Amino acid sequence: MSDPMNEMHPPTRLMLTPGPSCLSPRVYGALAAPLVGHVDPWFTEFMGGVQELLRRVFQTGNHMTFPLSASGSGGIEAAVVNVLEPGDEAIVCVNGVFSGRMAEIAERTGAKIQRVAAPLGRAVDPEDVRRAGKGRKIKFVGLAHGETSTGVVTNIDPFRKVCDELGAVLIVDAVATLAGVPLAVDRQRIDICFSGAQKAISAPPGMAPITVSTRVEELLRNRKTKVQSWYFDLTTTMNYWGKGRTYHHTPPIPLIYAMHEALRIVLEEGLEGSWERHRQNQKALIAGLEAMGIGLFVRDPADRLPTVTAINIPDGVDGAKVSSRLLHEFSIEISGGLGELKGKIWRVGLMGYSSQRGNVLLFLGALERILLDQCMKLTAGVGIAAAASTFVGAAPVATGQGR
Amino acid sequence: MSDPMNEMHPPTRLMLTPGPSCLSPRVYGALAAPLVGHVDPWFTEFMGGVQELLRRVFQTGNHMTFPLSASGSGGIEAAVVNVLEPGDEAIVCVNGVFSGRMAEIAERTGAKIQRVAAPLGRAVDPEDVRRAGKGRKIKFVGLAHGETSTGVVTNIDPFRKVCDELGAVLIVDAVATLAGVPLAVDRQRIDICFSGAQKAISAPPGMAPITVSTRVEELLRNRKTKVQSWYFDLTTTMNYWGKGRTYHHTPPIPLIYAMHEALRIVLEEGLEGSWERHRQNQKALIAGLEAMGIGLFVRDPADRLPTVTAINIPDGVDGAKVSSRLLHEFSIEISGGLGELKGKIWRVGLMGYSSQRGNVLLFLGALERILLDQCMKLTAGVGIAAAASTFVGAAPVATGQGR
Repeated sequence: MSDPMNEMHPPTRLMLTPGPSCLSPRVYGALAAPLVGHVDPWFTEFMGGVQELLRRVFQTGNHMTFPLSASGSGGIEAAVVNVLEPGDEAIVCVNGVFSGRMAEIAERTGAKIQRVAAPLGRAVDPEDVRRAGKGRKIKFVGLAHGETSTGVVTNIDPFRKVCDELGAVLIVDAVATLAGVPLAVDRQRIDICFSGAQKAISAPPGMAPITVSTRVEELLRNRKTKVQSWYFDLTTTMNYWGKGRTYHHTPPIPLIYAMHEALRIVLEEGLEGSWERHRQNQKALIAGLEAMGIGLFVRDPADRLPTVTAINIPDGVDGAKVSSRLLHEFSIEISGGLGELKGKIWRVGLMGYSSQRGNVLLFLGALERILLDQCMKLTAGVGIAAAASTFVGAAPVATGQGR
Repeated sequence: MSDPMNEMHPPTRLMLTPGPSCLSPRVYGALAAPLVGHVDPWFTEFMGGVQELLRRVFQTGNHMTFPLSASGSGGIEAAVVNVLEPGDEAIVCVNGVFSGRMAEIAERTGAKIQRVAAPLGRAVDPEDVRRAGKGRKIKFVGLAHGETSTGVVTNIDPFRKVCDELGAVLIVDAVATLAGVPLAVDRQRIDICFSGAQKAISAPPGMAPITVSTRVEELLRNRKTKVQSWYFDLTTTMNYWGKGRTYHHTPPIPLIYAMHEALRIVLEEGLEGSWERHRQNQKALIAGLEAMGIGLFVRDPADRLPTVTAINIPDGVDGAKVSSRLLHEFSIEISGGLGELKGKIWRVGLMGYSSQRGNVLLFLGALERILLDQCMKLTAGVGIAAAASTFVGAAPVATGQGR
C-alpha cells in the first residue's frame, strides 16, 4: 500500500456499470457548493424543492417523499422494516441478488417471508404470487422493478392487481429504473417505491429516494409497535423532511445538493425523453453485440431491463480478463455476474449521464479490440457499424450535455 | 416556495454549531474529484488508506475500522444492534439527547435497557453504573464521550473499570470528540467507538467512522442470531471493508474522498495539536463571554466539552432572535437548546476547521452588537479584548490553513 497520507488522485473512468454512473460536470459543481447547516433556513426551504423534484420523477403527489440518507440497500431496509410488525407475513418475488436481498432483509425482522422465485433471467409470474398468497393475510408483496443482477425488468401492473386481491401493500425497488424506465408511482398505485441516487438519476451514491402513499403513511402512523430501526423510521424521519423540519439526523448535505442538480437535468430532458434515450442506446448496444456474435443473457426482449444489459461471455473468452483490460487499457468499467452468474455474464450499464451514443461506440470498439486479441472470430468493425446504423437523426439530448 | 427547478445558490455561512463544521477548501476539492466505481481497484486500495488514517485518529490497531455509510446516529444504531441479542440487558448513561438516543435505539431491539441518568449539564457518575449493574449480566455499557446537547464531556476511564467488573462491552459515542478532544481507543480499551464526519474531523456529514476491538469483533462473529439490521450489520459490511472488498452496498464515494482529505489535514496538524487548538479557542470564547457577563450552562470547568460550549441565554434576552440576527446579519450559524433546554441555552461549536481564533473574535463581536441592541448592559469591546488577551504567540495551526 502506498502512503495513506499521500494526496489522492482518482483516475477518470467511463463507468458503464449498473451504478455508479458517470456524473455531469454540473453535478460535480453542485457537490462542491458551500456547505450549510441542516437546519439553516435556506437549506430547509431548499429541501422542499428537492422533494418536489423527486415527486415529479416518481410521478407522485405523495407527501412522504424524500431521499433517505443511505444507499439503495438502505431503501430496501426502510421499506420493509417500516411496514412489517411482529407476526406479519409477506411475499417477496425473487429473481436475482437484489430481490433476494429484499427477502433477506425482511426475514431479519422475524416476520414470515415467502419467496416466490423465477429462474435467473426471467421475471416472477404474478400467477405464482396469487397462488402463494391465496387464503393468507399478506402484509406486503415486494419486487424489484429492475433486477440489476440479471438485467430483467418486471411489469408491475399485474402485481398491483394481485396486491388488491390480497389486501397487500405493494413495495417496488426502482433502484435501477427510476428516471431510466417508464414508472409512474401514482398511476400504477405503488405503495412504497424507492430508488438509488447513482443509477439513472446520475447523482453520486449515498442516497435512496423513497416515496410512500398516503394510505401506507397512515398505516405506518398507526403501527402498534415501534419500527425496529431508529435510523430508518420513516415516520420520525418525516419530522425533519415534513413540515416541522425538526432535526432527526444530519443528512449528507453535499449529496442532496448533487441530487438536486441531477434531478434538474433529468427533468430538463423530460422523463419521456430520458426513457427513450435509455431505450435507444441499449438498442444500439444490442445491435452491436449481436453483429459481433455475442448473445444476451435475457432471452425474451420484453424481459430486458433498458438500463442494464446482461451479456453472455462468449465460449472460450476469459471474461475477467476482458473486464480487466477494458479498465486498464481504456479506463472503462463494466461489471461481472454476481453469485452463480459469476464468470458467466458481463453487465453493462447505460444509465443516466453514462447513456450516450458515443459511449456505446467506444465500448464496442474497445471490446472488439480485446476479443480479437483473445482470438474470438469476428469481423473488425461490424459491432460499431451495426450500433451506429440504429442511430436516427440528432442524438437524443444526452443528459446535461450542451447546457 | 421558489421554483424548485431554479439553479441552487447556497449562502456562505460560518458554521459555529455542534456540526456540521465548515470545510477546508481542500475538502471541497476532494468532494468534486472524479467519481469511480465502488469496486474499482484504484478505489479498493484507496479505501485501505482511509481506514489506516481512521486508525491513527482513533489511536487503534483495530482491523474492523471503517466509515459507516450513515450519519452519527447511524453509528449509534450500528454499535448497539450488533452487540445486542434477544434477552440481553444493557446500561446506557443518559445525560442528554444523544445519550438518550442511544438508549432509545437500544430499546428498539427488545433488549432490556437500564438508563442511568445524570442531571443535564453533568456527567453520569460511574458509581451509579456500578450499582445498577451489580449482580446482573450486562452486555454493554454505553455513554457519550461528548454529550453535544449540553456541552458535557465524560471521563471514560472509570467506566472502563466498571465494565471490567461487570464483564460488559464498553460503547463510546465520540461523535463530538474524535480529533477534537483527547481519546485513545486502544489505550483506554474502548470496545466500540464511533464518531461523525462533520464535527472535529470537518468532513461533510453523511459518514460515521467506527472501530471495533478484536475481542468484540470475535463476539459479533459468534452471535447466535442475525443482526436485526442488514444495512448496519458490521460483520457482513466487513466483507467489503475487509480483505475481500466484496460488494455489500455502494458507499457514498465522494464523502469518502472528502473524509480522506479531512483526515490528512487532522494528521498533518497532529492529534495533540488539534486537541490543544480546540482547548485554546474554547478558552478564548469563554473568557470573552465571561467578560461580557454571560454565564455557561456547564458549571464545573472539568465537565466542559472543548468542542461545544453551552451558553446560558442571559435574562431578558430573546435567544431565538439573537440566533436569527447572527444568521441573517452576519451569516453565522449557532444552535439552540434541544428538548427541555430549548430557549434556555445557545450552543456554539468550535470544531475542526471552524475552530480558529478569528472565528472566536468574529462571533463575540457580532454577539455584542446584537446584545447591545437588545439593551443588555455590557461595555462594548470587553468580550473581544478578553478573548484576544488569551492568545499567546503564533496561532495554533488552524486546520488546513496555509497549506
